[in-house]
Amino acid sequence: MSTLFTKIIQNEIPSVKIYEDEICIAILDIAPVNKGHTLVIVKNEYETLLECPDKILSHLITTTKRLAGEMKKKLNLDGFNIMINNGTASGQEVPHLHIHIIPRFKNDGKTPSLKKEQYRENEMIDFGKILSE
Amino acid sequence: MSTLFTKIIQNEIPSVKIYEDEICIAILDIAPVNKGHTLVIVKNEYETLLECPDKILSHLITTTKRLAGEMKKKLNLDGFNIMINNGTASGQEVPHLHIHIIPRFKNDGKTPSLKKEQYRENEMIDFGKILSE
Repeated sequence: MSTLFTKIIQNEIPSVKIYEDEICIAILDIAPVNKGHTLVIVKNEYETLLECPDKILSHLITTTKRLAGEMKKKLNLDGFNIMINNGTASGQEVPHLHIHIIPRFKNDGKTPSLKKEQYRENEMIDFGKILSE
Repeated sequence: MSTLFTKIIQNEIPSVKIYEDEICIAILDIAPVNKGHTLVIVKNEYETLLECPDKILSHLITTTKRLAGEMKKKLNLDGFNIMINNGTASGQEVPHLHIHIIPRFKNDGKTPSLKKEQYRENEMIDFGKILSE
């Protein structure tokens, strides 16, 4: 059973492709945060970042960089977000690794206002110990 | 004049470091979306993704992958987001390239609910043409 993105890659489902090579494709997101919102999708069915081999991941991020740079010029962006959601709990909608390039403009109201957590006294140091061991 | 992150890298400003090598450091964000929220910061003062050479960028993303994988096990995460903000308009707070690793748990309420835009008829195809040229 192949993912939605594999069906798009195999042209079984239509999409607006803006780039393709042996390792990945880039298509427009049909529900864009801003118009031009692009998904860079790896051709192999790796579910998240963690399953993707380093060499392929490096290709994905440098391709993303190049496409974002071109998008910035062509759409006259003020900035852009790169986002990779990993796992359903994170908001990942298709279990097939993809990188979001989200075009941004001054005062476009698209910066999420997420409630931040607060560390209790010394708790941050404890987290640091756990994560650096 | 050096950035806040350069001062952290040079230990002029304290931080909780969880990883360091020749190219980057990883520290805990003091205002975490969830506790454990980590920033992978390149040591050179590249402002955004676009100024960062491919080789260094590849190192940053593969290091991010490794740290996120370890974090997932150590903090028993259900998922995680990777985020890179580029430019003030995108929500970038320090003009010095850094990658967010945001720990996520089922139903933690930390998935942003951003208003999506809608393409008018044929407009998506027009954007595709502009971006693929």
